[in-house]
Amino acid sequence: MTSLPRELRQLIESGPFAFVSTINADGSPQVSVVWIGLDGDEIVSGHMGHYVKLRNIERDPRVVISFLGGDVPGSFLEPYAVLHTRATVEASNDAWHLLNRLTKVYLGPDNDFPAPEGPGYIVHYRVERVGGVGPWAPAAHR
Amino acid sequence: MTSLPRELRQLIESGPFAFVSTINADGSPQVSVVWIGLDGDEIVSGHMGHYVKLRNIERDPRVVISFLGGDVPGSFLEPYAVLHTRATVEASNDAWHLLNRLTKVYLGPDNDFPAPEGPGYIVHYRVERVGGVGPWAPAAHR
Repeated sequence: MTSLPRELRQLIESGPFAFVSTINADGSPQVSVVWIGLDGDEIVSGHMGHYVKLRNIERDPRVVISFLGGDVPGSFLEPYAVLHTRATVEASNDAWHLLNRLTKVYLGPDNDFPAPEGPGYIVHYRVERVGGVGPWAPAAHR
Repeated sequence: MTSLPRELRQLIESGPFAFVSTINADGSPQVSVVWIGLDGDEIVSGHMGHYVKLRNIERDPRVVISFLGGDVPGSFLEPYAVLHTRATVEASNDAWHLLNRLTKVYLGPDNDFPAPEGPGYIVHYRVERVGGVGPWAPAAHR
């Protein structure tokens, strides 16, 4: 997939809490919530530690990111996005700066990321397939 | 785990949109959003078709259910729950009735489930471990 649907880009840039599903070493699912942003047509997240989800991604890059799309009164299921991605982890001195940028989206423009600056990790997610319920998802994919 | 924390039960009964993470046959993650309810200390969901997630659960019962816990202004990450469960699928004539009960939670007390009555499936999720961020989750699990 080379470009994300406009409505999906807008939703990502609005700061949804994103569930990241990875696979543990024993094959079981692992889920945590992260902040996400856009880097061109890829999704990015920043991390100040080498957490379980990053180790999982390094072992198996197949990652699903899913998030709600805002309340639509009377809708049967809230709009939501399920993004099937290939993810890569890189050690980066820019992780804090990414997190600081996302802090202004998720917590408000006057906020700074509260952790001290330092080296971290950035995950890039290349979106291979878009599903869910909403203007970004064909109904057949539900 | 024999009993769910009170705050978690209240959250489930408030009708959160729940992300269900299962494992596909090829080992990749699969995610969809479902309605959930309580049946004693287990979580339940109802389904009118034998969807991919149900086939995945029959192959590998390790399922993670995750959902947001409501907005807390200024919180760094919204409260959220990550429930590691063992799930079982059963064909059931009560699936529609479960979905009809949940319709009143998720869409409002005057609503009925819009699909015609008929046989379906109920998934029971036995919660083995509770994580996330909130009163139900020890900080060390983050």
